[in-house]
Formats: sequence, C-alpha cells, structure tokens
Amino acid sequence: MENFVFQNTTKIVFGKGTENHVANEIKGLGKNVLLHYGGGSIKKYGLYDRIVASLKEAGLNFVELGGVQPNPRLSLVYKGIELCRENKIDFILAVGGGSVIDSAKAIAIGVPYQGDVWDFYTGKAQVEEALPIGVVLTIAAAGSESSPGSVITKEEGELKRDCLSDLIRPKFAILNPELTYTLPEEQTLYGAADIMAHLMERYFTQTKDVDFTDRLLEGALKTIIKNLPIVLKDPQNYGARAQIMWAGTVAHGDLLGTGRIGDWASHNIEHELSGIYDVAHGAGLAVIFPAWMKYVYKENIARFAQFAVRVWDVEADFNNLEEVALEGIRRIENFFKSVGLPVTLGELGIPEDKLELMAEKCTERGPVGNFKKLFKEDVLKIYRLAI
Amino acid sequence: MENFVFQNTTKIVFGKGTENHVANEIKGLGKNVLLHYGGGSIKKYGLYDRIVASLKEAGLNFVELGGVQPNPRLSLVYKGIELCRENKIDFILAVGGGSVIDSAKAIAIGVPYQGDVWDFYTGKAQVEEALPIGVVLTIAAAGSESSPGSVITKEEGELKRDCLSDLIRPKFAILNPELTYTLPEEQTLYGAADIMAHLMERYFTQTKDVDFTDRLLEGALKTIIKNLPIVLKDPQNYGARAQIMWAGTVAHGDLLGTGRIGDWASHNIEHELSGIYDVAHGAGLAVIFPAWMKYVYKENIARFAQFAVRVWDVEADFNNLEEVALEGIRRIENFFKSVGLPVTLGELGIPEDKLELMAEKCTERGPVGNFKKLFKEDVLKIYRLAI
Repeated sequence: MENFVFQNTTKIVFGKGTENHVANEIKGLGKNVLLHYGGGSIKKYGLYDRIVASLKEAGLNFVELGGVQPNPRLSLVYKGIELCRENKIDFILAVGGGSVIDSAKAIAIGVPYQGDVWDFYTGKAQVEEALPIGVVLTIAAAGSESSPGSVITKEEGELKRDCLSDLIRPKFAILNPELTYTLPEEQTLYGAADIMAHLMERYFTQTKDVDFTDRLLEGALKTIIKNLPIVLKDPQNYGARAQIMWAGTVAHGDLLGTGRIGDWASHNIEHELSGIYDVAHGAGLAVIFPAWMKYVYKENIARFAQFAVRVWDVEADFNNLEEVALEGIRRIENFFKSVGLPVTLGELGIPEDKLELMAEKCTERGPVGNFKKLFKEDVLKIYRLAI
Repeated sequence: MENFVFQNTTKIVFGKGTENHVANEIKGLGKNVLLHYGGGSIKKYGLYDRIVASLKEAGLNFVELGGVQPNPRLSLVYKGIELCRENKIDFILAVGGGSVIDSAKAIAIGVPYQGDVWDFYTGKAQVEEALPIGVVLTIAAAGSESSPGSVITKEEGELKRDCLSDLIRPKFAILNPELTYTLPEEQTLYGAADIMAHLMERYFTQTKDVDFTDRLLEGALKTIIKNLPIVLKDPQNYGARAQIMWAGTVAHGDLLGTGRIGDWASHNIEHELSGIYDVAHGAGLAVIFPAWMKYVYKENIARFAQFAVRVWDVEADFNNLEEVALEGIRRIENFFKSVGLPVTLGELGIPEDKLELMAEKCTERGPVGNFKKLFKEDVLKIYRLAI
C-alpha cells in the first residue's frame, strides 16, 4: 500500500426533492450566480424552473449560460469566462452531468486567470485560484460532482485534455436520483459504463496489500452490475437509481483509489476517440476497456482472476487461473452487450483509417497506463483489438 | 434508501513516517498547542520525541497533558480545559487512540463554553464553538479520528455518554500503520472488535434499497476478518496493519452509513458495561454483539442470511434461511473466540448482580436500537444471553 493524502470536502445532499433548496447551499458562498447547463432537458422537465425559483426566493442574482455539449468545448468556456467577468459572477452552479460540471470548473479557473485558460489543460500553468462551484447532478456517470478533475475538448486540433486541482472540487453536490428518471436510455447506459470504468481504472493496479480498497471497488462494481439492468427495465425505480447515483459519485471521489496506483490507460485511449469522433465517453470506454484487458491481463493474471471470481462470480479454478481471468473478461464484455452497450469501434461508427494517428496523439506526452506502460504500438494494438 | 447529507472534511495523511511532519498540518490552524496523550507508550517507543521535534522545528508553542485512560474521564477533561485557558491554547493535538481523541474533543468544546462541558453530553447544550483538533493515531479502533463523536465517562454515577457535532471532527488525522506495531495484543484485538461493531451497527438496518453501502460494509468486514489473524501472528506486517487501520477510519467516517438507519443498540448496551466495570469497549462489544444478534435476528432473517452468506461465506440454503442466519451468528462468535476475544460476561469478569441496574440505566432515556426497539426487559434478556 502506498502512502497517500485523502481529503474530499464536497458536501453531498442526497435524496428526493433536495434540488428545491439549492439556494440554501449557495448562501455564504456567493451572491452573483452563473447558472450553467447543457441542452434543453432541464427546462423540459421543470428542473430549471425549480432551481430558478429557489435562487429568486433567496434573493440571489443570476445570469445563465446553457449549451454545454457532451465533450465540453473550450469555445463555450471562453464565452462563460467573459460572461462571468462582465457580470461580476462569484459562484457557478452547474446543473447537469459531467460535461456541464467540467465546463463550469474550466470557467471557474479561467475567470481569475490573466492568461489563456487552456494553459491549465496543457500543464503550462497551475491552478492558484478558482470561483466556488456547486452542482445539481442530473446524470450518474462522470463523478465530477465531487472530483478535482475537469476534461475539456479544444476544437482546434481535436484535443481532449484534463486539469486536476483540489481548488475546483465542488463545494456541494445535490444528488436526487429522481432527476435521472427521464434520461434517454443510452445516457443511463453510457453513465454506468463510465462509472464502471472509474472503478476498474483503480482496480487494475500492481500495488500490493490493497485488500480494503479492492473490496470497496468490487462492491461498487457489483452494485452497478446488479442495478443497471433494473433501471433499464424500470427507469423510475428510485432504489436502483439511488444505488447507481451514489456509487457513481463515490467511484470517482478519491476514496476508492487511496493507497493504490490506478491505471488510467483506457481513459487516455478513449479520449482520442471522443476527441476526434465526438462519441460519448461512456460508449467509448465500453469499447476500449475489454480490448485493454485482453492486451494486458498477462501482466497480473492473479488480479484478473480475482476480478473474475469476486466481481463476476466465476468459479475459482486454481489450476487454471489464466482461464479464470479470461472468463472474467468475457463476462464483462457479455454484460456490456447484454445491456446494449457497444463493444467494438464499428458499433461506434469509427473507421480504421485514423487508428495510427490516434495512437500517436494518445502517447505524444509519453506512454500511458500504470498497470502496463503502453507506447504507441501498444495503443495501436488495443485499438485493433477493439475493431 | 433515506435522504442524507454527507460531508467528511477530515484530511487523512496516511503512511510510513507521516507523523514526523505533524507540524506541517498544524500550520494555519493554531500556534499554541495542547499535546494530549494517554499513558507512557508514546514515550517508550520514541513517538513523543518525534512529535515534539516537529513542533519545535516549526516554532509552535505547546503544553502537554497526558494521562488519558481508556473510557476517558470527565475529571481530566476539566483539567485540560483549565490548562488550555491558562495557556491560551488554540489547537489540540491528540496523540493516541479513541480515548485520547474523545478527551481532546471534550476539551475543545469545553474551552470556549461558559457552562459545564458535561452539558454537551446530557443534551442540555448544543456545541456552537470548538478549538480545532488534529490527531496522530496510534490504535486502529474507534474511528474517532474522522468522526463527529466523543464519548466521555463521568466518574460520579458511572455515566458514559456521547456528544455529536461536526464542529469536533478533526481537521486532520495522521495514520501511520507502523505506530500500531507495538500495541499489546489485546488492544489490537479490542480495536478490531470495535471496528467490526461500527460496521455491524450500520449493517443491521431495516432500510430498504441500500445495496451499495451493504457492499461497502461487507467489504470492510471481510478486510478485518482476513487481516486480523495476520497481524496477531505477525504484528509488524505493514500491509495487514494498513488495511485494518484505513478500514477502521472509514468504518466510522459516516460514508458507510449514508442513506440507512443504523442500529446502535449494542453500543448503548455495552456502554453500561464499560461505565460500571471499566472494561475495554471493544471487549464489551465482542460479548454484546453476538448476544444482541441472537435476540433480534428474527426481525429480519433475510438480512442476517445475507450477512452470513456474503460476509462469512455460509452456503446459501434458500429453503432454510433461518438456519443460514443462525450459522452466520455462530461464525462471528467462533471468529471472536478463535482470535482470543471474549464472548461472555464471565470472561470480562462481570458478575450477574447488576444486570438489572445496567438494563435500567441503558434505557433510562428511552428504548435503544433501531433494528428492533429494545426496552429494559429486552436489554436485560440480552445481558442474560451474554452470561
């Protein structure tokens, strides 16, 4: 087990009706609010109205900026920064999923910064100041609601890059599972794939003596595996929606990665897909993760066998651990297929002509992954395994 | 699943050598430190010297108050409050286990309060202010290092009572598993029993749809069950000590109880034992918990069967869930025996003459427990099951 520092200060307000009191959480943090959101769905189902009512009742000023797209764009971040400066915004409320939250985080660090906010995503600058952020979550997926990360796509060059800082961790996150009832089925699916990927990036480690976090990660994975088929059949099942939503936040809230070195190659490999082809991040991960597993499992067959036995209830055959490990990989691939997730690049509509370019871009800052370090040729092979 | 608010702000600094930089964590929080500890063990193994060196190097002033006993006493708390006021103390560093931390918390709320600090433990007053606290943990047990609770024993009347407030949650906790190498075996044992009890108090709930926290609790229990026998055989096994220590903190850090109503009867029933007979809290819990289980399991046989199957690997016999549930109770009792924990009042040296008095005191503020509400007669029967 590695030494670590862990502190996740985000206040979680969880449950039915909690979004109606969002202004209570903003009090003391800011007075001039940027209300940041995505498409029209928050207006369609009345969420926008309830939030505006709460802000108005509390006497908070607000301006709004909608239009965040999946794989949130740098151009909208620039627009948000300008809007905040013009309106002396001192608090950003993100209403949506990971894309909206990540866009809000980028705006939050861009406003007090003199240079180009993209500097934080290229490593040219370190975050020293940020506007406070709050979240009303509408999708169980990215875990950005209590994470220190933000991923932004720069249209020019099709670059998808991330920035990490404790200063952008949201002050609060309101999680009402009812808000996920009306999600299109594919968003529920992609969200679940994203959550599982966050758990597996942490699970596949070479760090020894990590029983405790292994068990927590396995438990979170089993929670998604059990509850995802339930919500697909019964989208208004509160209990199942609640399990997925809370597991999704905890999955990416640092605790489950304490003391262990996560892998994160699959996220990097996927970022090139969504950077170029604008596929949903979760869909891309469902394709890349099994391919990555097939390519790397021999680096630690015992760990893959443990994954198979504990997460997928594969019978433990101690005389043939490799077969156990492979059965685990088959089970996750079959699970993805059974719920309707894509498992090939073809299903994502991605042709083979740019695989080499993507592998090149993916590794331009050096090899990716910690479970096994992957260079350009390795990444290319993984893309090919995903065809 | 119940609505909930969750926020645990304690910064965890975990790993080898971390206590040597304790002063770095105090900077910005205070300048005049009360160094609070228990018996002489922190001096015996050099911990005291390393901490004092760090404080001096950072130019922090400090006064010290040792002598905290297990089941920390109100009289020492009064002494600490006086000492803090005389020395203008603005920060309390607790070096020890749950007793030292709980005593530090009591002092922290007593200093700025005009009345009797015991008021916070009787419900007569609510905490509105507290000195900041930091912890260097030396025992994996109570979880007080990131919890909002403090339990103090008032010698007069042999009363053991608790106080809950987010204001007494430690600002930081330094967890170095190496510091637990030199614990007497019984302290390791009692600590593990305390951790398991914290997990089981949360596990045994009547709240529906709590898959995710069920899984986390089961994983934490399995972590202790696996690693406790390892550290008993090999006290300097860093990996196993680390699993127990981190699980012990997380067990009582609120996350694992989110959205579910815990039971807590066993803690209340045990408090009377340690209040009157001054037995170690963990030892008392090892005796009370199996007795409580035998008395209440029929209230929710499915939950006890789940506990048996998932935590203790009992074969699932779906035609005889009651037998499965009972086998789970036998397994935990046998596990306690196998590691050397007491499972009867007799082993604690507790006679039968005050059982009725204890049952009376335990329920004087109303029935205890949420899994099944227990009145005086119920508590008495549980004590008798523990004879």
